[in-house]
Amino acid sequence: MNGFAEILDDVRRQVPVVHSITNYVTVNDCANVILALGGSAIMADDADEVEQIAGLSAALVINIGTLNQHTIPAMLAAGKRANALGRPVVLDPVGAGASDLRNDTLARLLGEVRFAAIKGNSAEIRFLAGSAVAARGVDAGGETLVTEANLEASARMAAGLSARTGAAVVVSGPIDLVAFHDAAWAVRNGDAHMAGITGAGCMAAAATGCCLGAAPDKAAEACLCAMAAMGVAGEMAAEQLIPAGGGLGSFRTLLLDALGRLDGPALAARVQVESVF
Amino acid sequence: MNGFAEILDDVRRQVPVVHSITNYVTVNDCANVILALGGSAIMADDADEVEQIAGLSAALVINIGTLNQHTIPAMLAAGKRANALGRPVVLDPVGAGASDLRNDTLARLLGEVRFAAIKGNSAEIRFLAGSAVAARGVDAGGETLVTEANLEASARMAAGLSARTGAAVVVSGPIDLVAFHDAAWAVRNGDAHMAGITGAGCMAAAATGCCLGAAPDKAAEACLCAMAAMGVAGEMAAEQLIPAGGGLGSFRTLLLDALGRLDGPALAARVQVESVF
Amino acid sequence: MNGFAEILDDVRRQVPVVHSITNYVTVNDCANVILALGGSAIMADDADEVEQIAGLSAALVINIGTLNQHTIPAMLAAGKRANALGRPVVLDPVGAGASDLRNDTLARLLGEVRFAAIKGNSAEIRFLAGSAVAARGVDAGGETLVTEANLEASARMAAGLSARTGAAVVVSGPIDLVAFHDAAWAVRNGDAHMAGITGAGCMAAAATGCCLGAAPDKAAEACLCAMAAMGVAGEMAAEQLIPAGGGLGSFRTLLLDALGRLDGPALAARVQVESVF
Repeated sequence: MNGFAEILDDVRRQVPVVHSITNYVTVNDCANVILALGGSAIMADDADEVEQIAGLSAALVINIGTLNQHTIPAMLAAGKRANALGRPVVLDPVGAGASDLRNDTLARLLGEVRFAAIKGNSAEIRFLAGSAVAARGVDAGGETLVTEANLEASARMAAGLSARTGAAVVVSGPIDLVAFHDAAWAVRNGDAHMAGITGAGCMAAAATGCCLGAAPDKAAEACLCAMAAMGVAGEMAAEQLIPAGGGLGSFRTLLLDALGRLDGPALAARVQVESVF
Repeated sequence: MNGFAEILDDVRRQVPVVHSITNYVTVNDCANVILALGGSAIMADDADEVEQIAGLSAALVINIGTLNQHTIPAMLAAGKRANALGRPVVLDPVGAGASDLRNDTLARLLGEVRFAAIKGNSAEIRFLAGSAVAARGVDAGGETLVTEANLEASARMAAGLSARTGAAVVVSGPIDLVAFHDAAWAVRNGDAHMAGITGAGCMAAAATGCCLGAAPDKAAEACLCAMAAMGVAGEMAAEQLIPAGGGLGSFRTLLLDALGRLDGPALAARVQVESVF
Repeated sequence: MNGFAEILDDVRRQVPVVHSITNYVTVNDCANVILALGGSAIMADDADEVEQIAGLSAALVINIGTLNQHTIPAMLAAGKRANALGRPVVLDPVGAGASDLRNDTLARLLGEVRFAAIKGNSAEIRFLAGSAVAARGVDAGGETLVTEANLEASARMAAGLSARTGAAVVVSGPIDLVAFHDAAWAVRNGDAHMAGITGAGCMAAAATGCCLGAAPDKAAEACLCAMAAMGVAGEMAAEQLIPAGGGLGSFRTLLLDALGRLDGPALAARVQVESVF
């Protein structure tokens, strides 16, 4: 897969408006990621306005991290409206498996909304793909992470979910996977600090919305661009962090710095992507 | 207009409690701005308590960024209570024009609450002033920004809204405008990084509430002080940012650093304000 | 009291899942504190799922900072479920005394949920302990802070609340107090910058939940560990801040850096704790 890094330059040229219905834990980070990549962010989650907001946006991101009785109908309404308008919709199934409310909401969302991309950690994607995985908070447990040993099996699982939903499926982790129908790619960028701050996964979903907003007809490429951008920015942040002796707080600041500096050629020069099948 | 910078010292002496009903995207930044300027922040948005919270606060800031069916009645109740007590109320009409819910809510707020200050970007203020401007997310589009070419016309528009509402009207952007009845001033401080982070506008509204809390009878001066403080702090942040090679994440951190260091004399020494008419 | 610093190492070994129902102002900081200390964070506040989320968590933190009609029933349901499962529950009574809604909710929470720890600033704990203290925003006023002069009287007040509730009671401030039944300790760590950023108190409650999750049967020790960790991290942050010339924004970043680096031996080497009675 080549050429996906250029989507980053399309984002900066087009300044896509990305509408997010997301959790209040990491919403500020998500907005800053969208701005750093060159998009424009609008957060709106009242059922009375989300259809109109979806109408003026290039993409919609639905993140169920702190879903509630008022935002669930808004997610459904916004998703259907975006579908009707042909705008790409991203799903971040935070905490899939952790409660009936989350699982029932995911079933409704997958039943009523057509997603261009689904991005989760390995536990969340495994849950959606049908493997019974006991949820453990919102962080992927060590036993489910994508490793070299389970890489192809993990990619098959993601490809199965892609085939069933039509969405490009992203499994985030130390190795990121992107599956689209019967093809899959591994992205080997990133840094271990990313698992140490809250919101790295949510930020990746926001980045995916941003890239899809600029390239709505290139689901797999947009996902690869977003995951590559997050991973490369994480590496750039770690390179600055280590001589300065900083930790998690500094890493998060430097991650935003790096995202704001990235462009297509810089991304293409550093991305480590390979086809799995 | 002289002497407004001293309001910053009044804030540090009086430690005004600023009550905010605001969006969850930038609420943390708003609280930190209020603390950095020397005020005390309380966020409370349930209709059952906002009147009491307004009663123990020196100022109220209403920001409609993520308004919903539960916070709208709270905004109205808190605004009316603050009015009854003679406490200044600030309106930040985030996304004005983007949805009927926002527009109807703004109409109700402007009809039922008397604002001491209204602070928006150029697209939002243009919408409130009656020009039909197509909203584009929550960021002001390039075509509507205040420039040298449209400076006086923009100030006339803001002054018209001020005359109609009785509020001091602030248009934030590369050049900030403050209009109060038939007078208007331009503030030429600030830095381009401010448009690159989320929440610079929300922070300016929080700062305005803080200054009004300390100087409730000086609406224009309080707005000038707040916008000057944000702009000068932005310049100070950029001066530290550039040799260090930082980006958007670092800028945001340095902006809070600078706000915490500012006082009246430092502000007076750097502010670039001039009368428009 | 010795040995409490080792709880920090238990946190890193056990990775306790901490469920928080908290305010949206400082929620991101709270999640990052939990991760920095080695725990796993899940925020969930819809009444339809909080019992299940409590069931998969090692501890629950209830923070009433932006309580509302929808989160209050969730707080009660989650608290009772955690009690039934024997999981420790922490209460952060933000703004106690500021409104009838807060006071009535606190009365219900204290009547229906058994807390392992209650952490507030001096004004909040004084209110819960029954002294009529006029609330002033959510920050403790100067007149109520714990000082050398009122140290023993403050500790007696906290011990009284502990005896009445069975909870370990923490009074945060320049001197932190921990009272458990008829014993009390003073922690003399920390830095003045902590009062200058929003959320230092909320972060301390999150840290307390994290430590209790790893040591559910050692309420006093877990509270001492959490307050010592926050205080020592604040000192480490200030030591880095001052040569670099930073302010409030940088302090907050460095505080997270320091929390992520702390372990039991480092904490034990720096903590300044003494028995009050």
